[in-house]
Amino acid sequence: MAKGNLSQRMWGGRFEGETDTFVAKFGASVDVDQRMAMEDIQGSIAHASMLKTCGILTGAESTEIINGLKDIREDIRAGRFVWRTELEDVHMNIEHALIQRIGLVGGKLHTARSRNDQVATDLRLWLRSATRHIMGELVALRRVLVDLAEKHLQVIMPGYTHLQVAQPVRFSHHLMAYCAMLERDSERFGQTLGRLNRSPLGAGALAGTGFPIDPGQTARQLGFDEVAANSMDAVSDRDFALEFLSCCSIVMVHLSRLCEELILWSGQEFGFVTLPDSHTTGSSIMPQKKNADMCELIRGKTGRVCGALTGLLITMKGLPLAYNKDMQEDKEGVFDAADTVRDSLKIMRTQLPGITVHAGRMRAAASQAFSNATDLADYLANRGMPFRDAHEVVGHLVMMCLREGKVLEELSLIRLQEASPLIGADVYTVLRLDAVVDARDSLGGTSELQVQAAIERARRSLSDHSD
Amino acid sequence: MAKGNLSQRMWGGRFEGETDTFVAKFGASVDVDQRMAMEDIQGSIAHASMLKTCGILTGAESTEIINGLKDIREDIRAGRFVWRTELEDVHMNIEHALIQRIGLVGGKLHTARSRNDQVATDLRLWLRSATRHIMGELVALRRVLVDLAEKHLQVIMPGYTHLQVAQPVRFSHHLMAYCAMLERDSERFGQTLGRLNRSPLGAGALAGTGFPIDPGQTARQLGFDEVAANSMDAVSDRDFALEFLSCCSIVMVHLSRLCEELILWSGQEFGFVTLPDSHTTGSSIMPQKKNADMCELIRGKTGRVCGALTGLLITMKGLPLAYNKDMQEDKEGVFDAADTVRDSLKIMRTQLPGITVHAGRMRAAASQAFSNATDLADYLANRGMPFRDAHEVVGHLVMMCLREGKVLEELSLIRLQEASPLIGADVYTVLRLDAVVDARDSLGGTSELQVQAAIERARRSLSDHSD
Amino acid sequence: MAKGNLSQRMWGGRFEGETDTFVAKFGASVDVDQRMAMEDIQGSIAHASMLKTCGILTGAESTEIINGLKDIREDIRAGRFVWRTELEDVHMNIEHALIQRIGLVGGKLHTARSRNDQVATDLRLWLRSATRHIMGELVALRRVLVDLAEKHLQVIMPGYTHLQVAQPVRFSHHLMAYCAMLERDSERFGQTLGRLNRSPLGAGALAGTGFPIDPGQTARQLGFDEVAANSMDAVSDRDFALEFLSCCSIVMVHLSRLCEELILWSGQEFGFVTLPDSHTTGSSIMPQKKNADMCELIRGKTGRVCGALTGLLITMKGLPLAYNKDMQEDKEGVFDAADTVRDSLKIMRTQLPGITVHAGRMRAAASQAFSNATDLADYLANRGMPFRDAHEVVGHLVMMCLREGKVLEELSLIRLQEASPLIGADVYTVLRLDAVVDARDSLGGTSELQVQAAIERARRSLSDHSD
Amino acid sequence: MAKGNLSQRMWGGRFEGETDTFVAKFGASVDVDQRMAMEDIQGSIAHASMLKTCGILTGAESTEIINGLKDIREDIRAGRFVWRTELEDVHMNIEHALIQRIGLVGGKLHTARSRNDQVATDLRLWLRSATRHIMGELVALRRVLVDLAEKHLQVIMPGYTHLQVAQPVRFSHHLMAYCAMLERDSERFGQTLGRLNRSPLGAGALAGTGFPIDPGQTARQLGFDEVAANSMDAVSDRDFALEFLSCCSIVMVHLSRLCEELILWSGQEFGFVTLPDSHTTGSSIMPQKKNADMCELIRGKTGRVCGALTGLLITMKGLPLAYNKDMQEDKEGVFDAADTVRDSLKIMRTQLPGITVHAGRMRAAASQAFSNATDLADYLANRGMPFRDAHEVVGHLVMMCLREGKVLEELSLIRLQEASPLIGADVYTVLRLDAVVDARDSLGGTSELQVQAAIERARRSLSDHSD
Repeated sequence: MAKGNLSQRMWGGRFEGETDTFVAKFGASVDVDQRMAMEDIQGSIAHASMLKTCGILTGAESTEIINGLKDIREDIRAGRFVWRTELEDVHMNIEHALIQRIGLVGGKLHTARSRNDQVATDLRLWLRSATRHIMGELVALRRVLVDLAEKHLQVIMPGYTHLQVAQPVRFSHHLMAYCAMLERDSERFGQTLGRLNRSPLGAGALAGTGFPIDPGQTARQLGFDEVAANSMDAVSDRDFALEFLSCCSIVMVHLSRLCEELILWSGQEFGFVTLPDSHTTGSSIMPQKKNADMCELIRGKTGRVCGALTGLLITMKGLPLAYNKDMQEDKEGVFDAADTVRDSLKIMRTQLPGITVHAGRMRAAASQAFSNATDLADYLANRGMPFRDAHEVVGHLVMMCLREGKVLEELSLIRLQEASPLIGADVYTVLRLDAVVDARDSLGGTSELQVQAAIERARRSLSDHSD
Repeated sequence: MAKGNLSQRMWGGRFEGETDTFVAKFGASVDVDQRMAMEDIQGSIAHASMLKTCGILTGAESTEIINGLKDIREDIRAGRFVWRTELEDVHMNIEHALIQRIGLVGGKLHTARSRNDQVATDLRLWLRSATRHIMGELVALRRVLVDLAEKHLQVIMPGYTHLQVAQPVRFSHHLMAYCAMLERDSERFGQTLGRLNRSPLGAGALAGTGFPIDPGQTARQLGFDEVAANSMDAVSDRDFALEFLSCCSIVMVHLSRLCEELILWSGQEFGFVTLPDSHTTGSSIMPQKKNADMCELIRGKTGRVCGALTGLLITMKGLPLAYNKDMQEDKEGVFDAADTVRDSLKIMRTQLPGITVHAGRMRAAASQAFSNATDLADYLANRGMPFRDAHEVVGHLVMMCLREGKVLEELSLIRLQEASPLIGADVYTVLRLDAVVDARDSLGGTSELQVQAAIERARRSLSDHSD
Repeated sequence: MAKGNLSQRMWGGRFEGETDTFVAKFGASVDVDQRMAMEDIQGSIAHASMLKTCGILTGAESTEIINGLKDIREDIRAGRFVWRTELEDVHMNIEHALIQRIGLVGGKLHTARSRNDQVATDLRLWLRSATRHIMGELVALRRVLVDLAEKHLQVIMPGYTHLQVAQPVRFSHHLMAYCAMLERDSERFGQTLGRLNRSPLGAGALAGTGFPIDPGQTARQLGFDEVAANSMDAVSDRDFALEFLSCCSIVMVHLSRLCEELILWSGQEFGFVTLPDSHTTGSSIMPQKKNADMCELIRGKTGRVCGALTGLLITMKGLPLAYNKDMQEDKEGVFDAADTVRDSLKIMRTQLPGITVHAGRMRAAASQAFSNATDLADYLANRGMPFRDAHEVVGHLVMMCLREGKVLEELSLIRLQEASPLIGADVYTVLRLDAVVDARDSLGGTSELQVQAAIERARRSLSDHSD
Repeated sequence: MAKGNLSQRMWGGRFEGETDTFVAKFGASVDVDQRMAMEDIQGSIAHASMLKTCGILTGAESTEIINGLKDIREDIRAGRFVWRTELEDVHMNIEHALIQRIGLVGGKLHTARSRNDQVATDLRLWLRSATRHIMGELVALRRVLVDLAEKHLQVIMPGYTHLQVAQPVRFSHHLMAYCAMLERDSERFGQTLGRLNRSPLGAGALAGTGFPIDPGQTARQLGFDEVAANSMDAVSDRDFALEFLSCCSIVMVHLSRLCEELILWSGQEFGFVTLPDSHTTGSSIMPQKKNADMCELIRGKTGRVCGALTGLLITMKGLPLAYNKDMQEDKEGVFDAADTVRDSLKIMRTQLPGITVHAGRMRAAASQAFSNATDLADYLANRGMPFRDAHEVVGHLVMMCLREGKVLEELSLIRLQEASPLIGADVYTVLRLDAVVDARDSLGGTSELQVQAAIERARRSLSDHSD
């Protein structure tokens, strides 16, 4: 096998043999971690500033290094920078370019630092930014849900349990359930952000550094809330990535549920909504098809995000302290999950405003299937019958209706009273669809008042956020 | 196939056929969910009190129900209560027993409530208690680690990266890394507890209830922080279980790493510690064996806890709103993970105080393998050589030593100066093991001052907790 | 903490301290592994026979041991055997009882054996039996599907892609798709069985044994196909459990898909089938509900089975050879998955014969939604128009129909010919539902001939199996 | 938002609105699935040939199409082909290019085919090739292991259980354990290949096709063993991908164990082997480091492969028949796992021949830690003492030795006889290291004869394979 270029290895002193080319390629991460180039340079600039403040670099050295890094940043942004696999990773690529550009002084940048604390810093900076982006998308989608809920406040649909019609609910109430889920997602990401935003810089390879550095300065300059309290933990901790993936998995589970519903609702059997042409696709063979592709894809992508969480848990299991190369495997899953969640949220928030709501189909579906049976049982319970007996009585009435192809409110008062003399003529008012919905008027219920209040609470909560 | 006893089903009104016995057994959850019996009764008592306050039950009815429930609770605690599979679940078993004991009035307990909001309430109460228990164990283990760190402050061991000797560290510093991990675990469980502690009672089957209830009263009586804001979300949300399993998975990953290290350290090759006889076992065939069974088991149990997380993510993926029977599968994984984490933490905190630390073996290992090579490179960098060049110089010295079977400090000054004239006689002081350790004196480093400070910070943080 | 009873430990010679009681409980597996008691005794009897044949035990010793084991087996079967946690596991419990019953000679049973090869043997025997049981259930369910397919051969329903109506299919064809999946499941379990059925007995702790045993004899007596070829592999291999869990996960994914469909089909919107009362349940609050509980549960249980696979992969990852205590964690997931798969298959095969098929609803649904649009495009392609153009032409016709609330066959010939002059009067025959279905007459298609052939092939394949 | 180019959509007939650009990008798979371009063209050529044979295309049409496809193939191989995201996927890109090159006749290629059967065909072809490649690497690595085992047949090392020294074994025996694992991996991939190698072409969108095609011809031309028996299953089955990922996960678990051992063995504490410079790397900060990077990476990559399996199980769970867009998510995980497994095997087979084995260190380690204790117990058992008692006796002798810093064979005969009068002078022969190893001479044991036989069996098994 061909050999790697020894002169470019930054750790070759004690090695006699050369790295196998295939090995170098297998071990290289630059294809993946170049995505953290901006964060790497940001961290290096802060490090060089701090080294100057602490008297480890001279002002001139620090300035030269920082200017060199800024040059490289320009080249990367402009797509002019050539990434080289034989230089292993984003850190070595940039440091090597720096030395090529400004000479040996570039070699001083790595004073009092190791790739171990460097990569942890880069990944935290990257994830901080990704988390904030996702949090912005969460807020945007919640706004869309609230707008939609407000717009369709008077639309009544069947509420389901076990995917069987259970009780009628406002379509708005259903939408606001997702709003509540996403609000928890926002909370979770926010708390993960708190633990994420701690600076590992200064931990060195694992034990701290012998140079008189000021880890607080780099932390402040990089916007971290605090410095990691233990250097060994600082370089071997990937909790923040696990937490991030856990938050991502949960939000994808939420989206998968919404997608499942949109797929059902937009099919011919339900017919509750039509999805916008902008977010659906056709078939290469069946000319009539209009598929909820975006919903299916997001539902499907739940797998990859949860798989990334599983994968990193497996990778981290049983590793001794401190840094191990296994941990290089932390990035792809995290990058992919961040992209997937951010894009899925964006797809959903651009799709929802375009849906057409078929209020008539929804109402018709809610009027069938005995969605008011609970109310009849409640009616009897209100008149003193133990709920359990009321349930039995109504169950028998339902069966009678099923045989006759009727709904409950189509039974005559006489027949109802045969089932229970507690029933009076007022029962027909109770069984009306709108009455059934608005009867559920306690906190969190589906009555108009409650849903309006929920919308207002959500609006207030969202007004604290800027996009 | 034999048939179930129809008369005992609480929802049989509209059914003609009977439930298949095997089906009834397959669907029954009472074997599992009877573990929430205390929480179920606690919730029912609060519900009955509220129904009275709101005028839905009379004072007498409420009292009769509550007394009946307390009786049942006594029987369960005493192991006298007979659980019946044909009654499906913990809720139906208790309600059925109540009706048998106090008559038809018992049937009024279920007014304005559904099993859907009931089971969500029970599980939240159970998990609240389990979370607090785990949080207590986390604090206890952190105390043990801090005590041990304080006791062994002067013990120096090799710090590893890639399981190769990297730089010497204090054993205390290594222990405090785990303390930092567990502190994050405490934080995470605490935040999950916040989201867990919201009351779903009042959500009914999915849409709220038509009875004029006060969900705030039951929430307060049960110690919940607030009422769930959306009834559909309240009965279909299992985020709290997913979060709990995620926290459990991460703490198990931490423990798996500590276990891996204890297994390595207690083997003959490392020989750093001896584990207590109380926590090790022998072999049925090899009389000399003393196995770190507890560590291996905990490391192995990481699988089941992460598997439970994966399992629930799979179960929840793609479910439409609101409650689906799939969600009955939320309990076993959660119960098992709670037990496993709590017990693993307890095993670890009872094991650690019993370990014998072989400080001499640790120190000897740290003195070999060039753990001071970085310090020589830093020494050169301090004298103006770019770090990258210093690294190369030291790399060659290491290779020379390897050939001659020496360590760096055994090379004569002349030979060192051949490698670089920047080296002076003071280098031998720099290369001493204790000097190497104490040189790393910035925040989070392994110097005596830093580790002492870390121990004090941890003590202060722990003093806020009572066991 | 209290101490365990030293005298009962079978490996106590070199230990001074005692095992902590909580530790003993945490480490004990007898609650779980007693499920392999019959296999443990079966293996021990074969081992004792072999020891006699090889002259390691006398005939009298062997007989005494075997009779003792049979006595214990009787007691276990009768529920009289007292399992003791302090004896750790099923092996020690039985061996201890043997010594108590027949005296010191009982101690000779463990000659030339270790718990490491013993537990691997037990688990393989158990899994062999569980696999055969599952394979029997797979065959039984396939029979039910074939019967159902035959019975409903003339029922036409919509075939879906993206859960949108695509093309009409025979209900039988749809059922036979599941038959094909389950046939692959049978194949997979059968092949796993091949690798499972190898005897680890003789591997000892890890290195083989110094006694002149004949591993071939125990293998034959226990019905194994061959002896494991490497003793270290024999005691550290859990591939068979991973494979088993993988097979289980895939069959559960199949069942989850069938369950999803039955849930959809039995809801009011689709209305394609009614599930039997025997396999559905009601609601504690909503008297009208009839929930597809069994389907939901099976779909939900997919999570626990896949979670068990993930869990064991995590447990096994990174373990050095040979046996490690981590591997004790192999059993619960495997037992649970075996039960779950077996019971889920049984539930499905008892449920399916009881469904009522609403052929009219199915046919009506298939007649709408342009399920014959592909056939019109094919018609044009057959007359020389490139398929891509035909697709475009039909797409526009579909849109026209959508605006007018028509289906394709309701358009006049003139209007069709405006779209393409290639269309003739014979098009109406082509567009008929039955014609559409029977047109798909190539191998594997949904025409009557093809489905009949598939049913016959399945019957032949199943006739090789006895229940 | 900007709009996609409608004219390029191949299903636009019934759509009025345009696809959102971001949506098009989110839904496009061409970045991923272009990896199947060769397979896609291979399948299309076979399809065009068959269409001609069946009289659906003329000879001229078929030739024109096939030549066009071959041209495109050349361009792709040469890197000249421009992939366009707005054309969604590999299929549409190639078909569109075909129509551009050969005109409208290109549109006839898609006759009697759908993307649903097309993509299933492509993925099967790709995986067939990937599986064969992996199987080749498995054979190559097994050869390397056998060579190494033969070379080091006389090297004795400690065998471990619980990572504690258990009994001495030949290093060859240890290596051959991995050979046995990989042989099972070969078996598994081979069986998966059998199920993989079935042709879905002809299934159309889901129901088969109305054109008089011959699915057998395309199957034969593409080297498939048979035609899928049910069209709905053919397009919705992803079992082969799940199986493939399961096989990949298990082989990665095997490699993770070997890697764990190599990492341990190459550390200073064990010192059993030195890894080749070609496969190890240094540290950017610690000049002395030589890290087992390749082993750590492979161990770490176990996570991503198992994560891909989990991910696809999640994606497939609960999907109704037939094709759903969720299934587009099947590819990335499969491609990544295939690459990871293939490369990891290659890295391992190039690394192992370069290791330096430190036989002295291994032997020294095996001579300590009472690795012959079992043999002393066996010695007593051979002389009639029940094994359980022998175990106890030896346990006490071990404890005595531990106190005195001796090994068993250093105890005088008198002291041994105090422990048991059954012990004679011949015991010292029994306790010798080589005797201990060679005593384990039953099938699968670690004696020289057995290991030699195992090596020969492996050689024979491998001679059936060409690389």
